[in-house]
Amino acid sequence: MTSKSETTSGAVSRRRLIKGAGLAAAGSALAAPAIAQGNPEVKWRMPMFVPKTVESVMDSANDIVRRVSDLTDGKFQIQQFGAGEIVPGGPAVLNAAEEGTVECGFTLSYYSFGKDPAYAFGSTLPFGPTLRGHYAWLFKNGGMELLNEFYESKGTHAIPCGNSTMQMGGFYRKEIKTLEDLKGLKMRIPGLGGLVMSKLGVIPQQISPGDIYSSLERGTIDAAEWAAPYDDFKFGFHKVAPFYYAPGWWEPQATIWLHVNKKKWDELPKNYKAVLEAACIATCTTHNAKSDVLNSGGLRSLIAAGTQLRYFSKEIMDASYDAAFKTFDEMGTKSPAWAKIYPAWKKHIDENELYYRVGDNTYENYIYGRRVKG
Amino acid sequence: MTSKSETTSGAVSRRRLIKGAGLAAAGSALAAPAIAQGNPEVKWRMPMFVPKTVESVMDSANDIVRRVSDLTDGKFQIQQFGAGEIVPGGPAVLNAAEEGTVECGFTLSYYSFGKDPAYAFGSTLPFGPTLRGHYAWLFKNGGMELLNEFYESKGTHAIPCGNSTMQMGGFYRKEIKTLEDLKGLKMRIPGLGGLVMSKLGVIPQQISPGDIYSSLERGTIDAAEWAAPYDDFKFGFHKVAPFYYAPGWWEPQATIWLHVNKKKWDELPKNYKAVLEAACIATCTTHNAKSDVLNSGGLRSLIAAGTQLRYFSKEIMDASYDAAFKTFDEMGTKSPAWAKIYPAWKKHIDENELYYRVGDNTYENYIYGRRVKG
Repeated sequence: MTSKSETTSGAVSRRRLIKGAGLAAAGSALAAPAIAQGNPEVKWRMPMFVPKTVESVMDSANDIVRRVSDLTDGKFQIQQFGAGEIVPGGPAVLNAAEEGTVECGFTLSYYSFGKDPAYAFGSTLPFGPTLRGHYAWLFKNGGMELLNEFYESKGTHAIPCGNSTMQMGGFYRKEIKTLEDLKGLKMRIPGLGGLVMSKLGVIPQQISPGDIYSSLERGTIDAAEWAAPYDDFKFGFHKVAPFYYAPGWWEPQATIWLHVNKKKWDELPKNYKAVLEAACIATCTTHNAKSDVLNSGGLRSLIAAGTQLRYFSKEIMDASYDAAFKTFDEMGTKSPAWAKIYPAWKKHIDENELYYRVGDNTYENYIYGRRVKG
Repeated sequence: MTSKSETTSGAVSRRRLIKGAGLAAAGSALAAPAIAQGNPEVKWRMPMFVPKTVESVMDSANDIVRRVSDLTDGKFQIQQFGAGEIVPGGPAVLNAAEEGTVECGFTLSYYSFGKDPAYAFGSTLPFGPTLRGHYAWLFKNGGMELLNEFYESKGTHAIPCGNSTMQMGGFYRKEIKTLEDLKGLKMRIPGLGGLVMSKLGVIPQQISPGDIYSSLERGTIDAAEWAAPYDDFKFGFHKVAPFYYAPGWWEPQATIWLHVNKKKWDELPKNYKAVLEAACIATCTTHNAKSDVLNSGGLRSLIAAGTQLRYFSKEIMDASYDAAFKTFDEMGTKSPAWAKIYPAWKKHIDENELYYRVGDNTYENYIYGRRVKG
């Protein structure tokens, strides 16, 4: 792949096209005097884990790119590439950022779960906190620093930049009422969620998004999880698997990060690091907001189209919860990074959920019940 | 008050001290050529609604100031002033920003509720959405634009910059079990919450934060609401009023905004507007996180100190809910701004709460119950 990085320093207007090395070779041109002359010109490529048609996720990508440009008077430009354009989706996006074939990648690190299970922490963990609890850990209780130790050991410095929020539990061709109904069920569910499900007898299937519909239709698989209602509706899975379950306990939030190649990050001027951080962290708030404005409408569309909304039974939730925490303990014996990060993550949820329960949860239970009543 | 605004344009290093006019008189020095020469130097004063000792709120103010400085290589400096330093707290902060005696103010607009009830919308409404629902309205469903029409008509352009999240229902000298127990209760509760409470027979008292403790101790008042557990504990109210109620239905989240004097806002270079927006909105993400890391510990400290945690009864919640929405209808006949904003706010909550209920709320009910069980 040919690098499109281009760096121009201040008023001197030097232009360089550097093959392969990106900003690296031009780094020396960005020292203190260059800053005094004005912001340097930087052009980065940002492959994404989704095609550009996934509107709910593009809201985050578009806002980051716009903010970075606005903050630098157009001097720092990031170009988005949908999955498959310059890099395939899935783990390839993070791989490319780690290896430096691109300057940065916009992705969920859990796609690299197979390489090291610790990649799951930054994205989501089954039965972990919902959005606010996860952000509390990341931003104000040491999570971001701890995860960046891990990411940097692999080749990127990363910043949270969006969240697809609480996921649904997927579409099923038949109702799932008891643990017995899960035995032998062929379900499209990747990563850690699939691993936990396999402890309950489910046979996890790795199927790329483009093949889920036809696999469900033909009955090659019995069930598939994808995302939250807005995106789920657009894929049309309800037409071939009418039972739609809540909640998606394996993904109670889904944090997207901007993974910046470590070398490129280190070469950025200090104020451009601040620009990336502010643009990404601001987008954490606004992207969640977008997801939240889309999903209720998506759920209504699904129900109007005949989708049968169901909730996992207590028996299934309890067995899944136990299987999840058992799996977490096993991961610690396989991954030193997991063994280091998990106790901090667990301590955070043990210590910081009390007030959500007493405050927000008590109040939300009341208002949601009351709104239905009118 | 003497203005401390000072503007230096690029490498030319002109220094001006302008009395009273702040950035305004220097505005012409910030035109396009100045940007090309580099970021102009801008110094602003930011009075706050709290003294600097309120740690949970200072986390937001400190992050904004740091981010604005980092994004501009130190060229854009904002100096914080605690309540009482250059402007008193309460509505005075927003007044000063509207009148332009300061460049900006860091406050909750509901303190100006007496001037126009529509000032409440930006901060919080009784029985309104919790944090995510409010942000969804502000950032991705038209709320921010609608509120800025109103704020700009009064003299500021405003950006959300933090959130004190779900509040508690306050401290009471005696248990409150029925509606009868509220009749004649003298309670420190300001603004719209107080107005709704008065419909239930409560006699709202306007008491400044510094006098709440002694008023409760002497029995001049029977109850007082302040904030969430971390801040509440530090005030020590539990020592003189042991019953602590959840939830604070009159304040299900509490958005702090940076109110920028409209004239000062219009004079800012485009990239400095982007800087303020990114710094404030990023702080929306991180300030909530800070509140969430502090409040569970605060609640534990209160309980360890003998505070009796109680929940409002369904009878009280139902009557309060009815009184709140009745009050909202009355406001529409008094304030044209309320009559314009309220239908948009109401439509947002009517249309966008379904998925919180089916997704997050279902899941959170499960995990919080399960965590207690172990």
